[in-house]
Amino acid sequence: MPDDRVGQQLAFLIEVDKLKKVERRTPLSDASRLENSAEHSWHLIVSAMILREHMPVELDLLHALELLAVHDLVEIDAGDTFAYDRAEQQTRTQREMAAADRIFALLPPDQHSYVRRLWEEFEAHESAESRFANAMDRLQPLLQNAAANGGSWRDHDVGREQVLQRMAPIRSALPDLWPVVLNIIDRFFTSG
Amino acid sequence: MPDDRVGQQLAFLIEVDKLKKVERRTPLSDASRLENSAEHSWHLIVSAMILREHMPVELDLLHALELLAVHDLVEIDAGDTFAYDRAEQQTRTQREMAAADRIFALLPPDQHSYVRRLWEEFEAHESAESRFANAMDRLQPLLQNAAANGGSWRDHDVGREQVLQRMAPIRSALPDLWPVVLNIIDRFFTSG
Repeated sequence: MPDDRVGQQLAFLIEVDKLKKVERRTPLSDASRLENSAEHSWHLIVSAMILREHMPVELDLLHALELLAVHDLVEIDAGDTFAYDRAEQQTRTQREMAAADRIFALLPPDQHSYVRRLWEEFEAHESAESRFANAMDRLQPLLQNAAANGGSWRDHDVGREQVLQRMAPIRSALPDLWPVVLNIIDRFFTSG
Repeated sequence: MPDDRVGQQLAFLIEVDKLKKVERRTPLSDASRLENSAEHSWHLIVSAMILREHMPVELDLLHALELLAVHDLVEIDAGDTFAYDRAEQQTRTQREMAAADRIFALLPPDQHSYVRRLWEEFEAHESAESRFANAMDRLQPLLQNAAANGGSWRDHDVGREQVLQRMAPIRSALPDLWPVVLNIIDRFFTSG
């Protein structure tokens, strides 16, 4: 690649191809294999497009989609951190900060700042777009785990209370979806 | 799922999970495996965010991202049609129309129209956002094929002239990227 602005942009785009090799703990709905973080990010974007009406406050949809597109890029170096593993969660911030420093710096400086700000905003769970995007990031694995007969809940012995706690961002961001979420959880954990 | 608006939306979101199982002819950059259409769609969205400045006319980025998010959904039924296979291309429209009828109709009627209009606009190559999105859909496989030592060009004996013709939407939509594209093509086909 040429060593200029376009070259930096294309080098970044080739680098982020690696997100397709980061394996998550959530299976596909048919349980045929585990999902990767790139296809997961795409699924969250489609989910955001379809479910935006359930966000009870004004939402900048473009901004929400941008947050979702980059929210997992740090996993290229840091790997996917399992939501229900406390030991992994304790080292997550440090691993992901180092990853952000390396990966985002492949971009020209203005775009490095643009992508870093998006990632930090997603992680902060504060803006309406971040709260909505994080709700998508909880709902989509729920749907797949439920469809795949328990998925990562069953594989890693995760209980109803842990799942309920993990899904709390849906309750606060998208209250009118909460009864549906609760129903999915109860149907799975009651049936065994 | 409940048989109401939310239920239809969630049923659609579970259905589109299947796009992760549609295999394309393009390999990942490290040639370890073929890419699927869901992770490909994500990669195009990130590419659009990073390369938007190269589009010489006004661009609604949200609209471009929406086009990219849904542009391959019909492949869930119709499969990925190889760009360089004329026989496959001849039956593509019919297969994809039938797929659109089934898959988009899972949504509530207003969202069925919304997604169908996006897909038709992407296919028409007319609006600025569609021309930009289609240019992304040509550039990203080029980068991966070049990185993967020829990828689908080598596997399917595709020549320099065919690749040049396939990349024409980049030349017309993003003229300042054309020299870089030409350089990538020539470097590959000259080195053999």
